[in-house]
Amino acid sequence: MSLLVVGSVAFDEVETPFGKCDKMLGGSASHFSISASYFTDVRLVAVVGGDFGPEEQNVFESHHIDISDLERISDGETFRWGGRYEYDLNVAHTLYTHLNVFADFKPKLSEAAKTSRLLFLGNIQPDLQREVRQQMPNAELVALDTMNLWIGATRESLQKTIECVDVMIINDAEARQLTEIPNLIKAARQILSWGPKALVVKRGEYGAALFTKEDYFAIPAYPLESVFDPTGAGDTFAGGFMGYLSSQPQLDEAAMRRAMIFGSVMASFNVEEFGTDRVRRLTAKEINDRFRSFKQMTHFEEIPFERGS
Amino acid sequence: MSLLVVGSVAFDEVETPFGKCDKMLGGSASHFSISASYFTDVRLVAVVGGDFGPEEQNVFESHHIDISDLERISDGETFRWGGRYEYDLNVAHTLYTHLNVFADFKPKLSEAAKTSRLLFLGNIQPDLQREVRQQMPNAELVALDTMNLWIGATRESLQKTIECVDVMIINDAEARQLTEIPNLIKAARQILSWGPKALVVKRGEYGAALFTKEDYFAIPAYPLESVFDPTGAGDTFAGGFMGYLSSQPQLDEAAMRRAMIFGSVMASFNVEEFGTDRVRRLTAKEINDRFRSFKQMTHFEEIPFERGS
Repeated sequence: MSLLVVGSVAFDEVETPFGKCDKMLGGSASHFSISASYFTDVRLVAVVGGDFGPEEQNVFESHHIDISDLERISDGETFRWGGRYEYDLNVAHTLYTHLNVFADFKPKLSEAAKTSRLLFLGNIQPDLQREVRQQMPNAELVALDTMNLWIGATRESLQKTIECVDVMIINDAEARQLTEIPNLIKAARQILSWGPKALVVKRGEYGAALFTKEDYFAIPAYPLESVFDPTGAGDTFAGGFMGYLSSQPQLDEAAMRRAMIFGSVMASFNVEEFGTDRVRRLTAKEINDRFRSFKQMTHFEEIPFERGS
Repeated sequence: MSLLVVGSVAFDEVETPFGKCDKMLGGSASHFSISASYFTDVRLVAVVGGDFGPEEQNVFESHHIDISDLERISDGETFRWGGRYEYDLNVAHTLYTHLNVFADFKPKLSEAAKTSRLLFLGNIQPDLQREVRQQMPNAELVALDTMNLWIGATRESLQKTIECVDVMIINDAEARQLTEIPNLIKAARQILSWGPKALVVKRGEYGAALFTKEDYFAIPAYPLESVFDPTGAGDTFAGGFMGYLSSQPQLDEAAMRRAMIFGSVMASFNVEEFGTDRVRRLTAKEINDRFRSFKQMTHFEEIPFERGS
């Protein structure tokens, strides 16, 4: 039961209609690993600068996340991202992106890291994702995230990376952009034809869908009356999804369906407060209560219609 | 077991990227009643002109829809609507609306019609909807549809109508427009506070949601690789929803949830061909097979997470 994540650790500055936060722990690997830590043992590969201090280190350590493969460049600065959300919280407006030490990030996997059972390739340059993947030929399940930037700029490399993973996890706009097919169902079939066994499509307030060669599973989002800060929701979803799978002996369709729910549960908590604030202090009971809510809000009796006389 | 629908019968001219149809049977009452006819006895109140001929009459009669309350104005013309869809089939571009005999429509209910157990107030002027509703004080369940036109032009009257129905069935854009609240969950709470026991929100390719005072139920849409003509999908959904309820002895939350599925099933068939073409020739087996698909694509096991040692 072990899960490796390769991605970014960052400091985010975020402004929403409801508030502002100058410097909070962010980045795909942070959101992912904190979320996954509720389900499994997580090991993180990323890079940070000298501004990554004991406070940040403590966030990971208190969640038993193994950061022995976290590279530290003491004379550099950690990746920084600034963004603003309008009332339509679906769209992030990037104010600045300072890659800093992340610009030259070359993931280095220790021998211990390479033995992880599951691997999540967070949103980084697809050549790097593929290099990591090739160092772990025995991983039981490898999942991949990406973003519009890589789809636009490095399409060929991205496609090669997609060909060598088991699960792709993206949002619906990315699925359409990647395939240039407007119909999501057709787009999903296309992506699956490139190699992955499963495609997870995140649809924000509309929920999420799991496409496999033979099956289709779809769930609504948890109904939230207010969304405070959506930053990191996608990585938090992926963390719940992969973290739960990592805890399961069998990685079959039934486990993947439950993993979709746990991913949605974690993402629904993530957006309630700034950054990782809400997810950091979750309890197992809170997670399971919300899991049960998903069952409650999607259940109906299977009674076919029969016309009486 | 009887269901009354008041609405429009029309001839539609529709152009989509996949084809063109000059004159097909349409209108809210047509789509609704044909869909509902698979589940229950339906009676229709609407108005047509002299151009409504034996062919159209036969469509209703072959589905055992009672059209004895269908008003005929032989020297007038039936309501005509022309519309065009681009590749984004979510948006209908109206080319023309000729109200014709529908402009002076005053629904007249026979004594037999007034004894119907369930009533669906299709999308007509809200004063007329309320007049019909008041003629059926003993109806066990009354549902209401509307559209952006009435929300904009007759908001006060519409709100009065909403106050005296049991179920409102609208799409998500209409729910937001009606309440001026961008968050759908909050918007739904607001509408329920005006009186209805239940609110059904149709979300097109994203499925549908059922809000009640105590409960929330949400389902995805049936995954279609191609949508041919979305005209009438909303009324076809309402027909499946109300038709199924009409067949049930108890109109409780469990029945409403199954009704949501049958509504979605019927709407998913509707968009596969022009107008009512596909829904007209459905079989009970096709309907139940798709109902089962909905169970299959939303089911997951309720196994809470427990962390091992």
